[in-house]
Amino acid sequence: MKIELIAIGNELLSGVTVNTNGSFIGKKLFEAGFSMNLQTIVPDDFSFLQDTLKVALKRSDVVITTGGLGPTIDDITKDAVIDLLDLKTSLSQEILEDLERRFGKDLPSITEQATVPMTAYVLKNSVGTAPGLILDAMGSLLILLPGVPKEMELLLINEVIPYLIDHFEQKKMIAETIHLYGLSEPLVDPLLRQLQAEHLDLIFGIYPGEGKLTVVIKANDRTALNICSDAIKKEFAAHLFASQVAIEKAIYEEFTKRKLTLSVAESCTGGTIAAKLTTIAGASNYFLGGVIPYSNALKTKWLSVPFEILMNNGAVSKECVYEMAKSLLEMTKSDYSLAVSGIAGPSGGTHEKPVGTVFGAIGCQLTGEIKTFSFFIPGNRHTVIQSTTNQMLFELYKTL
Amino acid sequence: MKIELIAIGNELLSGVTVNTNGSFIGKKLFEAGFSMNLQTIVPDDFSFLQDTLKVALKRSDVVITTGGLGPTIDDITKDAVIDLLDLKTSLSQEILEDLERRFGKDLPSITEQATVPMTAYVLKNSVGTAPGLILDAMGSLLILLPGVPKEMELLLINEVIPYLIDHFEQKKMIAETIHLYGLSEPLVDPLLRQLQAEHLDLIFGIYPGEGKLTVVIKANDRTALNICSDAIKKEFAAHLFASQVAIEKAIYEEFTKRKLTLSVAESCTGGTIAAKLTTIAGASNYFLGGVIPYSNALKTKWLSVPFEILMNNGAVSKECVYEMAKSLLEMTKSDYSLAVSGIAGPSGGTHEKPVGTVFGAIGCQLTGEIKTFSFFIPGNRHTVIQSTTNQMLFELYKTL
Repeated sequence: MKIELIAIGNELLSGVTVNTNGSFIGKKLFEAGFSMNLQTIVPDDFSFLQDTLKVALKRSDVVITTGGLGPTIDDITKDAVIDLLDLKTSLSQEILEDLERRFGKDLPSITEQATVPMTAYVLKNSVGTAPGLILDAMGSLLILLPGVPKEMELLLINEVIPYLIDHFEQKKMIAETIHLYGLSEPLVDPLLRQLQAEHLDLIFGIYPGEGKLTVVIKANDRTALNICSDAIKKEFAAHLFASQVAIEKAIYEEFTKRKLTLSVAESCTGGTIAAKLTTIAGASNYFLGGVIPYSNALKTKWLSVPFEILMNNGAVSKECVYEMAKSLLEMTKSDYSLAVSGIAGPSGGTHEKPVGTVFGAIGCQLTGEIKTFSFFIPGNRHTVIQSTTNQMLFELYKTL
Repeated sequence: MKIELIAIGNELLSGVTVNTNGSFIGKKLFEAGFSMNLQTIVPDDFSFLQDTLKVALKRSDVVITTGGLGPTIDDITKDAVIDLLDLKTSLSQEILEDLERRFGKDLPSITEQATVPMTAYVLKNSVGTAPGLILDAMGSLLILLPGVPKEMELLLINEVIPYLIDHFEQKKMIAETIHLYGLSEPLVDPLLRQLQAEHLDLIFGIYPGEGKLTVVIKANDRTALNICSDAIKKEFAAHLFASQVAIEKAIYEEFTKRKLTLSVAESCTGGTIAAKLTTIAGASNYFLGGVIPYSNALKTKWLSVPFEILMNNGAVSKECVYEMAKSLLEMTKSDYSLAVSGIAGPSGGTHEKPVGTVFGAIGCQLTGEIKTFSFFIPGNRHTVIQSTTNQMLFELYKTL
């Protein structure tokens, strides 16, 4: 079974918008036992879109489109499909009433939005104005979804995936994803090559992130998959993040389950660690708060880092993060504290402490222990900030 | 002139990785006076890639590929191209020496990485191991770039864009991008439709972000473009962000130019505002730091918010953010302070203060004035956090 995606929008080609929809849909299809075979991004061009649809419908069993369904000036998808497939349309009273209820009768283009092909299976959009549509088209299935991520995501999860599961067989191939922190590709690749040589029908993928590495293994049977997966997990046990949820979610679960609390102090990461932790709904149940003592004066004022340490050891030092983590435990009474200070660059590096030098500390209220860490992260400012965030969250998770 | 991109990698189709390369390349081409006509994402499949390349090289003047050039197990691009175009290869001493100098002689696959087609124009990768390649292919130009963003970005900007400018004519069409904050699509679309009716040859695009809206106008001549651009800017003057750089960069420039300093206190945004401001290199020249008083206890402890205000008005109130901003000015001595508190959801909302209720404050040391703001942001947790961040940064920029 072949599924492909056509993402529609000049903004995706000119770089105004990143096509996060593409990876979201790919991920959800994959999790449901399907796979995306191809993705195409096309401009808001009526006849180009029609040509692309014709080729895609011939080639694939299911074609999903995103974008161009809304009421604004550059939305052409619905009209292009109606014209291509020569469909009759009618005003859907149900959609009209739903739009009136949520947006009022004065919503511009309200009848246009509620007018749908008569043969379409209509997917109600609970967030925005444009409904999704599922159509039989040239012997394949055509699924039109809005381009606004939160609208598309709800329709995909609540309507499209269940529809596909009802109507198509899921593939037999199984997969496992292994997350490793603090490793680079060249350290992991040789083992994968060795495993590949021993298991020729397996498919290996290795994907570097910021401070982490994701290995994906796909196989036809569980036995071979387990042999390889176990070999990788054993070899890199110290770097293995065993949970399958995002690390900020795993930390949330562990802290709330054990009724523990956390506070953070971030210098070089400038709030990125706290921002990541607080993306999780309910973070306030364990995350008490944090300090971003970007200037040295605030390191002293807010976290009582002795002036001598800043003078003698520097703000980027083991001693400084130790004091930051210790001070947090005292001030916030949190069960754990996390502190980082480093040189994110591009300037500020020295011969002894080049850009990418980072120190971290994790304090524990119960034991009074404060562990310190040091990293050297090659790369640009973005990489240093993001890798520090990921590696320190991994250390925190391991500490628990 | 037609340019298209082929992004190669199972990880892009299965959603392990978001294809940020696609939007980056689109944006840089657009800025240089070119445009990307099409983007395709294909799996790591030797013959499928060759078929896609054949079609693309026939259809477009320039085909850019990203990914699959590295030394790991799933990298197939270079071999697929060499086989498709029947190219002879040789070991490049220059690349070999460069790799030895940067990674040592023991780098795995070092000779494989330094082996390139003899007819290729080789682009030296200063970050990673895989060089980029420019090739004449079936009457078109084929440009192979690595998939790791920072490697691709450097090669694109330093080598590929200048090469395209030297070899191809840039298009005449001009464009203007207008950034509007705190507006939704239905409020802006009617004016765009009216302008479109008056100027049929212009192309309008409208792209919603979190708390902001981007309008792009493309035109063949400056006069029509200016008429429309002026009409939009006049109508939405209160929402116009006039700078063409990112808002965090504009704030950095304004603060450092005027030698001012800033501190922040973030409750519902949990560090997102500080994290955004500190992505800019040199942020430490004006950004003193911040507090994330996520719990009520820390609002009192760190920012002296009176207990009575938390009890009577609540943590999400005008009075609370006023105290937070005032306290920051006193504690940090910064020239400006910014504070936010809101209900990001999904829980925590009440009838009087539903999820999406946000209060903000901006304090000024010189005048002693503290302005407060209130927003209601419909949407999920992510939208509330990101929209609050963008709208408060816009208010800060306007205040300066």
